[in-house]
Amino acid sequence: MSAQILDGRKVRDLLTRGLVEKFANLSAKTMAIIQVGDRAESTSYIKGKKAFAEKIGVATQHIQLPEDATLEMVLEKIENCNGDPTIRGIIVQLPLPLALDRDIIINAIDPEKDVDALTSERVKGWTEGREDALWPATVRGIKTLLEFYKIDLFGKKVVIIGRSMLVGKPLAAMCISENATVTVCHSKTADLARETLDADIVISAAGKQNLIGKEQVSPGQIVIDVGINTVEGEKLDDEIADRKLVGDVDFEEVSKIVAMITPVPGGVGPMTVLGLFQNLLDLCES
Amino acid sequence: MSAQILDGRKVRDLLTRGLVEKFANLSAKTMAIIQVGDRAESTSYIKGKKAFAEKIGVATQHIQLPEDATLEMVLEKIENCNGDPTIRGIIVQLPLPLALDRDIIINAIDPEKDVDALTSERVKGWTEGREDALWPATVRGIKTLLEFYKIDLFGKKVVIIGRSMLVGKPLAAMCISENATVTVCHSKTADLARETLDADIVISAAGKQNLIGKEQVSPGQIVIDVGINTVEGEKLDDEIADRKLVGDVDFEEVSKIVAMITPVPGGVGPMTVLGLFQNLLDLCES
Repeated sequence: MSAQILDGRKVRDLLTRGLVEKFANLSAKTMAIIQVGDRAESTSYIKGKKAFAEKIGVATQHIQLPEDATLEMVLEKIENCNGDPTIRGIIVQLPLPLALDRDIIINAIDPEKDVDALTSERVKGWTEGREDALWPATVRGIKTLLEFYKIDLFGKKVVIIGRSMLVGKPLAAMCISENATVTVCHSKTADLARETLDADIVISAAGKQNLIGKEQVSPGQIVIDVGINTVEGEKLDDEIADRKLVGDVDFEEVSKIVAMITPVPGGVGPMTVLGLFQNLLDLCES
Repeated sequence: MSAQILDGRKVRDLLTRGLVEKFANLSAKTMAIIQVGDRAESTSYIKGKKAFAEKIGVATQHIQLPEDATLEMVLEKIENCNGDPTIRGIIVQLPLPLALDRDIIINAIDPEKDVDALTSERVKGWTEGREDALWPATVRGIKTLLEFYKIDLFGKKVVIIGRSMLVGKPLAAMCISENATVTVCHSKTADLARETLDADIVISAAGKQNLIGKEQVSPGQIVIDVGINTVEGEKLDDEIADRKLVGDVDFEEVSKIVAMITPVPGGVGPMTVLGLFQNLLDLCES
């Protein structure tokens, strides 16, 4: 292995101190997390968020609704949170049960408390790439990680694999706003290796194990692995208990070739939790 | 010259007939155009829209406000249009005077009448690439032009130059939603030719004369020129009177090399006006 590890756990821990200090000066800083149903993965993610919140002195309010909750029940909870001045961030844990209209629910969140940046107003903000854009937590986390390692995106060629509203699309918008030249690839891309080999930075958010192997990378590149693929196994990560996490990248092979790489677990995952609370801080301070 | 011309005027004229028939069956179909100040270019664009509207049997209402109009004055006009059931599309002609807050004004438009697809809700719709997304007029026009010539974007490599909210960003979103692999370039791209030479389709929306010359293209490519660069001269286009229009592409040289190309004028310009009224029709029928 020759690549430098971009160590998300280390960066998260280093930057946690600053967050603790800043939150200590704030009184209203509660994060509300609305969960509909009890999907094990969602519960696990929420547990991770609550644990981190506690560590940095942020109160959380976990609002649980049954799987068969009506739209009105969810909207009422959101309205309560919107109206509560102690609550500064609202998360509706995704995915929602299929019977519920996701768009209506998300857009009911006050954009000033939309810590996931998924309301129409926030989406417009990050699509535009405004100075004051709030980026979805994963994107915020990656941005922070790159900044920490002094990796400047200006003029760089970034290849992103994935086009979701949570990661791929806002990630492309963020990189474009930082003056990178950005290629968005996905499952219909004709020749993925042709695209990735040409990049300065490869960011994979496809959710497909071993998508990026030694054929897809070249020396000097930076590889960011956003893939979260769970396979049964021992507990290896803070974010999801009782599962073994692997990314999209064949770490062992790729790390022999490229210049820098994020591991999974311990890369983008911890940075995402950090990014979420960086967002909350921004909302508290705005 | 060997390239096939993608003839925007011809396609516009051919598709106009269908629009005329469909609008004939509708009673409420007025397009309101709100203009603040009297910029010559804006007046000229509006003239083009009004002329086309008349041709297809759509009424327009041109609402003119002085250059020093207050935010309240503009919002009042928008509210009136929102509340008027005969008005189905509202355009706020851009650019607005700098003293006015563009975001507040645009977002005051009822999304159901937002024919330019610039409100937060519409931006979210096209960023997401939803089936029912309304695309900004230029993007809609390009989409229609490609469909007319049976150019399928699926799996193609599209290189877009430009990242504006009116063209570059929604164009990238549209191409991604059609399963193209998309690269977004701009003024900070390190090596533009390296990107464009690699594409199946090059779409330039940079607004820079001669940006795309023979060094930037290769045989077999399709080149779409969205550039609208005006130079003093004779009247050559319907959209802007008394100016000579040139695109971003060195048409004479590039058309010798590539497979298909749009001219300027006569390419994307006429398709944009068509796209605007295709949008209006969708809003009337929804």
